Amino acid sequence: MARTHANNGDPAAGRHRVVIVGSGFGGLFATKALRREPVAVTLIDATNHHLFQPLLYQVATGILSTGEIAPVTREILRRQRNVSVQLGEVTAIDADARTLTVAGPQATERTVPYDSLIVAGGMTASYFGNASFERFSQGMKTIGDALALRAQIFGAFEAAEVESDPGRRAAWLTFAIVGGGPTGVELAGQIGELAHRALAREYRAFDPEEAKILLFDVGERILPTFAPRLSRKATTALERLGVEVHTDVKVTDIDAESITVADASGSERRIAAKTRIWAAGVRAAPLAALVAAATGAQQDRSGRIAVAADCSIPGRPEVFVVGDMMDLAGLPGLAEVAMQSGRHAARTIVARARGDRAPGPFRYRDLGTMAAVSRTSAVASFRGLHLSGRIGWLAWLVVHLTFLTGFKNRFTTLIHWGITFIGNAREERAIIDLPQED
Amino acid sequence: MARTHANNGDPAAGRHRVVIVGSGFGGLFATKALRREPVAVTLIDATNHHLFQPLLYQVATGILSTGEIAPVTREILRRQRNVSVQLGEVTAIDADARTLTVAGPQATERTVPYDSLIVAGGMTASYFGNASFERFSQGMKTIGDALALRAQIFGAFEAAEVESDPGRRAAWLTFAIVGGGPTGVELAGQIGELAHRALAREYRAFDPEEAKILLFDVGERILPTFAPRLSRKATTALERLGVEVHTDVKVTDIDAESITVADASGSERRIAAKTRIWAAGVRAAPLAALVAAATGAQQDRSGRIAVAADCSIPGRPEVFVVGDMMDLAGLPGLAEVAMQSGRHAARTIVARARGDRAPGPFRYRDLGTMAAVSRTSAVASFRGLHLSGRIGWLAWLVVHLTFLTGFKNRFTTLIHWGITFIGNAREERAIIDLPQED
Repeated sequence: MARTHANNGDPAAGRHRVVIVGSGFGGLFATKALRREPVAVTLIDATNHHLFQPLLYQVATGILSTGEIAPVTREILRRQRNVSVQLGEVTAIDADARTLTVAGPQATERTVPYDSLIVAGGMTASYFGNASFERFSQGMKTIGDALALRAQIFGAFEAAEVESDPGRRAAWLTFAIVGGGPTGVELAGQIGELAHRALAREYRAFDPEEAKILLFDVGERILPTFAPRLSRKATTALERLGVEVHTDVKVTDIDAESITVADASGSERRIAAKTRIWAAGVRAAPLAALVAAATGAQQDRSGRIAVAADCSIPGRPEVFVVGDMMDLAGLPGLAEVAMQSGRHAARTIVARARGDRAPGPFRYRDLGTMAAVSRTSAVASFRGLHLSGRIGWLAWLVVHLTFLTGFKNRFTTLIHWGITFIGNAREERAIIDLPQED
Repeated sequence: MARTHANNGDPAAGRHRVVIVGSGFGGLFATKALRREPVAVTLIDATNHHLFQPLLYQVATGILSTGEIAPVTREILRRQRNVSVQLGEVTAIDADARTLTVAGPQATERTVPYDSLIVAGGMTASYFGNASFERFSQGMKTIGDALALRAQIFGAFEAAEVESDPGRRAAWLTFAIVGGGPTGVELAGQIGELAHRALAREYRAFDPEEAKILLFDVGERILPTFAPRLSRKATTALERLGVEVHTDVKVTDIDAESITVADASGSERRIAAKTRIWAAGVRAAPLAALVAAATGAQQDRSGRIAVAADCSIPGRPEVFVVGDMMDLAGLPGLAEVAMQSGRHAARTIVARARGDRAPGPFRYRDLGTMAAVSRTSAVASFRGLHLSGRIGWLAWLVVHLTFLTGFKNRFTTLIHWGITFIGNAREERAIIDLPQED
C-alpha cells in the first residue's frame, strides 16, 4: 500500500537520483542546470541559504544586510519542481552502496541514496595548523563570520570613544588583516573608507582618521593572481585610504591583544591590535576528507580532490567534485569556475542517463577576475585587458549588478550601494548579540 | 597645561551636563530635544543602536533586515554636536554625588558625572519568576532575540521537510505564542502569512498550511487595550490566516518539547510545539532597581519607577524617568508616550538651567495605537475612532512610513514591504549562527 502510494504520488519515483551537496555557486548552478531534466534532485547544505561570498566583506563593513548576500536556497529554487532542498550535514559516504548519511537538523540522522553525486562543499579557513591563529583572529567564510566581524569593527570604534588611555585607544583603532587576496584587500579598503570617510564626525573623543589599517601578506605583492601593474594600482589606492600595505611579511604569532609579524630578514615586530582578521589560507571543507576516504580519491596540499577531465572522480564516474573543492588543471577558486564546473557535471550526468554522448572534458571559459579596492576604484582582468581606478570600478559594478539580477535582492542592494558610494553612509551597522543557546 | 587645554578645547566645559541612559524612543527624543541647547549631553546605552521595537516582529519573520529597525544611534545624532554617544552599561548610581558608574565595553569601568539625569531604560521580558518559561521560550525584546526567533521559525520548517515521523513533523510545525498583545498578535499573523501564503510551494514533503499557530492569552480577549470590537476583528482576521486564538488560558508549563496550558476550568492540555514564543509579561529593566536604590523612589509591581507630574523623581528634581520605565498616571508603554515624556523631561531641564519657568506637569497627547494583524488588515484606535481591515492597514502604513522618514531606512523598507505585501516573498530569511566567543 505504501509502495503503491509512493509510485503514484511521488514524482521522483523511478527517476535518476542526483544528490548535490553544497548550495554555493557550484551546487546551485548544477541544480539549476537540471531544471528541465527528468531527474530527481536532492540539494543538501548545512545552511538554509546560498552565500554570495564575494560580497561578504560588505556585510562585515555595514553596507549590505545578510539577506542581500544570503538568499534562501529554497526560495531561489521554489519553481524548480524536481528538486528537494534539505538542511543537513553529510557525515558519511558509502560509495559502493551509493548512499550518504546526513545528520541534522537537531539530533536526527538519515540515509540518502544517489545514482549520481555532485560534491560542491567549498573551502574553509586554514590556519596552517596554528591553533592560536584560529582562536585569536576572525575568519571570513560564513554569514555568521561577517556579522561577528561587523560587531568587532564597529565595537572597536565604540570602545575607542570611551577609552581614555592613549595606548589602549590606539590598540582599539588598529585593524590587522592577514592575507592580500581579494577578501583581505576589499576588507582593508572598506575599513579605510569607514575610518577616513563614512565615520567622519561621528566621534567626539577621537578622529576616526587615527585608525591604523594594516594589511599583511607573505608574498611579494598583494593580489598575486592579477597582473603586477594592477597589484601596484591597488596598493596605491589602499595607501590613499590610509591602509599600510606590508608585503614579504610573515605572521608568527597572534594573541588576544596583538599580532606579531616577521619581515624577510626575520626580525619580529609585535603590534597591539584589538581587531585581527584572517583572510589568508583556505583549505577544502572537511567533507573532502570523507569523499577521499570513501572513493580513494587523491587530495592536494589544500585538501582539494583530484578529478578527471570531466570533473568526476577517477574510477567513480558517478561521483563529481566541482567548484573550489575540485583540483583540476590548476583552476583557481573563483565563483565563475564553480558555476561552470557545476553546470558541466550536471550536463554530463544527464547525457549519460539518457545514453547520449557525454560533453567530455570540462573547459573553463575565463570570464576574468576583479576586486574592489575602494568606493571609486577596482582592479579587473579579462583576457589580457587590465582595468583599474574608476573604469575598473564601473566594470565591477556592471558585472555585480548583472550577476545579482539572477537573484531578487538587486533593488535594496542598489539603494544600499547608492547610500554607501554616493551618500557615504552605512545602513547595516547594528551590533548584534545573539542570545546564547542553552 | 592640561586644564587650559580642556577649557579651550572642550566645548562641554562649564555647560550643564545632561546624562541620558537608554537610546530607545524616550532617550533618543530627549536627546534630540536638546539639539539647540547650550548643554553637554551624554547618551549611554548597552547597544550601539536605537531599536524600532514595534517592527521587531518583521525582522523575526523575514521581512526586514536588522539595519532597518536598528539604526545606529551615533549616526542618527551625528550632526548634533552637543552629544557624546557612549556604549556602556550603568552598574551603579550615586544620587548624592550625582555620578553614574558605567561598565564596558570589555572590562573597563568609568565614572560619569551629571547635573541632570534622564533614565529611559525600557522594559525587559518578565516570566513571572518561572525559570523554565524563560529557558524554554524565545523572548522578543532585542534585535538578537528577533534573529534567534527567525532562525527558530525558518529552521522549524526546514526540520519538518526532512522529518519522516508524522508526530515529530507536527511538533516542528506547531508554533505556540504566549501573549495576545500587539507583539503576540503581529507575530501570530505573520507566521500565519508565512504558512498560508509566503512559503506556499517551497516544500516537497509537506504543505506549509499544515502548520498550527496557537495564540494564548490569559485574559478574556486579545488586544485588551483596544475596543472590544477591534479585538473581535483581529481575532477573525487571525483565524482567517489559520491562527487558533485561545483566550482565558493560562500557561502552566513550558519545556524543550511542549507547552502546557490550563483553561478556565483548570483542565490542562500539553501541546507538542518546537517553537515557543514569549510575548506575555514585561517588567522594568534592572536599571530601575538601581535608580530606586539610589534615590528611594518607589517601584510598582512591574518594577516601574513612580515619578512626579513632571517626570522627575520626588525629592530628586534633577533625576527624571521617562518612557516605559516610568510609572505615571497609568500611562501605557507606548513609543509615543516614551517620545513625549523624553521631550518633556529635556525641556524641563533646559528651562530650569536657564532659570525660566519649567513647563510643569507632563500631559500625554494621545495619538492612538495600532497593531497590524495580516498583510491587508490592521486595527487602529484614535480618540474614539476605531479602524480595522484594509482601512486600518492603510492607516498603519501611513503612520509607520511617516515615522520612518525620521530615519534613513525608509527606501529599503518600502521595497521590503512591497516585496512582502504585494509580492508575498521574504528577503531576510537567512538563518545565522554566530561563531561562539572563546
